[in-house]
Amino acid sequence: MDISLLKEICRAECEAISNLPSSSKGKIVKRGASGDITKMIDKVAEEAAVRCLQELGFEGSLLSEELGLVKIGGENYPLVVLDPIDGTTNAIRGINLYSISVALSDGPRLSDIVSAAVMELPSKRLFSAEKGAGAFLDGTRINTNGHVALSNALVGVDFNVRGNRGRVYEVLPVLMAVKHIRNLGSAALGLCYTASGSLDFYLDNRSLLRVTDIASAYLILKEAGAQVLALDGSELDCPLDLTARIELIAGEEKICREVLSMIGSRNNRLNKL
Amino acid sequence: MDISLLKEICRAECEAISNLPSSSKGKIVKRGASGDITKMIDKVAEEAAVRCLQELGFEGSLLSEELGLVKIGGENYPLVVLDPIDGTTNAIRGINLYSISVALSDGPRLSDIVSAAVMELPSKRLFSAEKGAGAFLDGTRINTNGHVALSNALVGVDFNVRGNRGRVYEVLPVLMAVKHIRNLGSAALGLCYTASGSLDFYLDNRSLLRVTDIASAYLILKEAGAQVLALDGSELDCPLDLTARIELIAGEEKICREVLSMIGSRNNRLNKL
Repeated sequence: MDISLLKEICRAECEAISNLPSSSKGKIVKRGASGDITKMIDKVAEEAAVRCLQELGFEGSLLSEELGLVKIGGENYPLVVLDPIDGTTNAIRGINLYSISVALSDGPRLSDIVSAAVMELPSKRLFSAEKGAGAFLDGTRINTNGHVALSNALVGVDFNVRGNRGRVYEVLPVLMAVKHIRNLGSAALGLCYTASGSLDFYLDNRSLLRVTDIASAYLILKEAGAQVLALDGSELDCPLDLTARIELIAGEEKICREVLSMIGSRNNRLNKL
Repeated sequence: MDISLLKEICRAECEAISNLPSSSKGKIVKRGASGDITKMIDKVAEEAAVRCLQELGFEGSLLSEELGLVKIGGENYPLVVLDPIDGTTNAIRGINLYSISVALSDGPRLSDIVSAAVMELPSKRLFSAEKGAGAFLDGTRINTNGHVALSNALVGVDFNVRGNRGRVYEVLPVLMAVKHIRNLGSAALGLCYTASGSLDFYLDNRSLLRVTDIASAYLILKEAGAQVLALDGSELDCPLDLTARIELIAGEEKICREVLSMIGSRNNRLNKL
């Protein structure tokens, strides 16, 4: 009932979405529990995950981006926290970088997560972690990078701010200070890339992420030695439900705190204009 | 001597880099003809391409990111224009999105290119085009998207401005106006995604691209019905050498011209500050 369960869910989702014609992946099917629009690929992937849990006789609950919180077998815990497809826009549009994010929790908060898997698609590379036992990419131990100068850093950000355009101005000083920027379109993958050292840190200041987007990556990051901080500098934690909107920075602590101080000062400067 | 030659080069490069240990891909081996640092993966890929041309008895020249212009078999044309690895940083750091970009030209200018291939790695999806015969992704015809409102657009940009930070301010109004932004780290792929409709347009205003980065994608875009414009609004063309530094926007004409007018007005506004 741990990482093998999560791998089974990934496998079941992969099989289900591989049978989906490209042209129907992006069809709008309903508005999900989170309030977001549900696309066909999300629905098919989520249904495959639910079927998988039922077939395996899972006794617990599921919190999922589209369905919300549902009991499967009558118990509250363990709780499966699922984003059936993270990076739906990439998946629909044919940008070859999206993922399945699935975690298992013993309790009601992010910090209660005990195992996690993020499967990069279409490559099927698997990021995974179990609490206290380290983080892995396809079975090989991964660690977040040690300290890197900001001027030499390769970083992940997300500029897809929707109605909240001012948030772009907040991150501008960071954008100006680093060496390379990536906006890849999957938060779960961007965070896992930070755990494996592909990115030096990942910053999302949009107040748009939900806990389903980051639950798995959170444990993978922690087990890879990364800090996961809220933008006030505290260690990130939150309830495992769909109400919270999350901002975060993840990576080596010193560079994260340097970035947080820059965002702060920029805010102050903007306020004074 | 056309698209099949380009496919052979891709195949040879893939084989060569698949034998390279991850840890040595990023080793700095020399400074290339373009002035950029050459990493091991670039060198190994380029050497494989040269060997492939020699073994196939190619009579012409090669313009490549690392080697510069070299004759292979004594003739000036046809000219192979090669970026052995586009998205080297992604390849080295383990971000699963980079490419091989190779084109064939009958003459000395970008507009003389007659066939082109961009292989997405590690997926090995192949974007290709022959002049007058359309653009393809794995053999299926592709077309750039028709007109999309800016507020609904998914766009590719590159914020990796190095010393030229002011360029970020130029694109800010665009960044604020669109729906989704991607900064993927491979210009060749970003441009091909625009040809196939995965992105609605691609904008690079950094004056950092060389003709080797865009030569293949240029023909693929044109054959997919996209406009490829310099930032003064003229149709992009330039000599096939490593001296030119290129800025461009590619996609459906109306949205491209709308973006160009925004960049222009932003420039004027900045100049007046």
